Amino acid sequence: MSANHDIDTLIDMMAKLPGLGPRSARRAVLHLIRKRELRMTPLAQMMQTVAANARECANCGNIGNAETCDICADAARADGTICVVEDVADLWAMERAAVFKGRYHVLGGTLSALDQVGPEELRIPQLIGRIAVEDITEVILALGATVDGQTTAHYIADHLDGRVRLTSLAQGVPIGGELDYLDDGTITAALTARKVL
Amino acid sequence: MSANHDIDTLIDMMAKLPGLGPRSARRAVLHLIRKRELRMTPLAQMMQTVAANARECANCGNIGNAETCDICADAARADGTICVVEDVADLWAMERAAVFKGRYHVLGGTLSALDQVGPEELRIPQLIGRIAVEDITEVILALGATVDGQTTAHYIADHLDGRVRLTSLAQGVPIGGELDYLDDGTITAALTARKVL
Repeated sequence: MSANHDIDTLIDMMAKLPGLGPRSARRAVLHLIRKRELRMTPLAQMMQTVAANARECANCGNIGNAETCDICADAARADGTICVVEDVADLWAMERAAVFKGRYHVLGGTLSALDQVGPEELRIPQLIGRIAVEDITEVILALGATVDGQTTAHYIADHLDGRVRLTSLAQGVPIGGELDYLDDGTITAALTARKVL
Repeated sequence: MSANHDIDTLIDMMAKLPGLGPRSARRAVLHLIRKRELRMTPLAQMMQTVAANARECANCGNIGNAETCDICADAARADGTICVVEDVADLWAMERAAVFKGRYHVLGGTLSALDQVGPEELRIPQLIGRIAVEDITEVILALGATVDGQTTAHYIADHLDGRVRLTSLAQGVPIGGELDYLDDGTITAALTARKVL
């Protein structure tokens, strides 16, 4: 549409990124072309660098630059506690909260009969292996409060039966949440898990 | 937040693109890292190619790979008619409609007292120059129906006084538009410019 094959190809590539469509891809590419020395070249170079260096941590599944990721290699972090997350994005979200100081294990998804994702497709065997080898005292299941997330949590709970302390994130009213806007399930969960003040 | 400096830098760069924020940038980068050979490397390479080759057409202001853009160089396109647009994005939108077969002139913005954009900041002198040199019979002002767009249209009209036929895009009900959802200005414009059936 730009009467230029390379620019069209670039727009098509950008439009395939999650969260972008043809229109926002055109805007982004036009913006980059306008600032090609200041923005486009450095962005392309950084993309090349990350593409060349990024790799999955062999231990936890996080993304890093080495065989073992920064978190697994960090001696300052508490051993003994593993926080199990579905995805690297969830690990990043936990790190932004900056409240958890233990180790992570990224499953790479959730069990899903519909999508034919079984335990072997996820990093569940590796998790069970880590619990056997590392000196783990607590496994925190930080999985999504979805059907698939909870199925996965139950599956892991069944396979760890009593070997470690198993916990999951609390469910309830989110901070800043107004009751009027919450769904029935959340209100039920919050009421069931009510606390004595 | 990803405990990896390069990935964080890449996310920050992506988050600065129009239409993307920190959250969508993280999603996009994670998606790219997962498909780094299939998606990320080709995208980075295409970005480098475009950054190295893209340039503004000296004649019309469109973006192309050469001193003169593909549209200006295309002998099959009708000389004699220039469609004046604010921006390259508008030129692309006109080309997608595939109805206009003449030449273009990209102003690079609109006159704006507030942003201190005067005629010299835009490509208005070049437009007047082209009308003097090229054999132009009609100038179509395809500028936005905004205050700044219309101010710019009036300014150009004043400076071309009768030298060429000057037209502007029709204003009215957009195709698929429902009256109930249209603003008063559009309804007024559509009623004023009503046609005999």
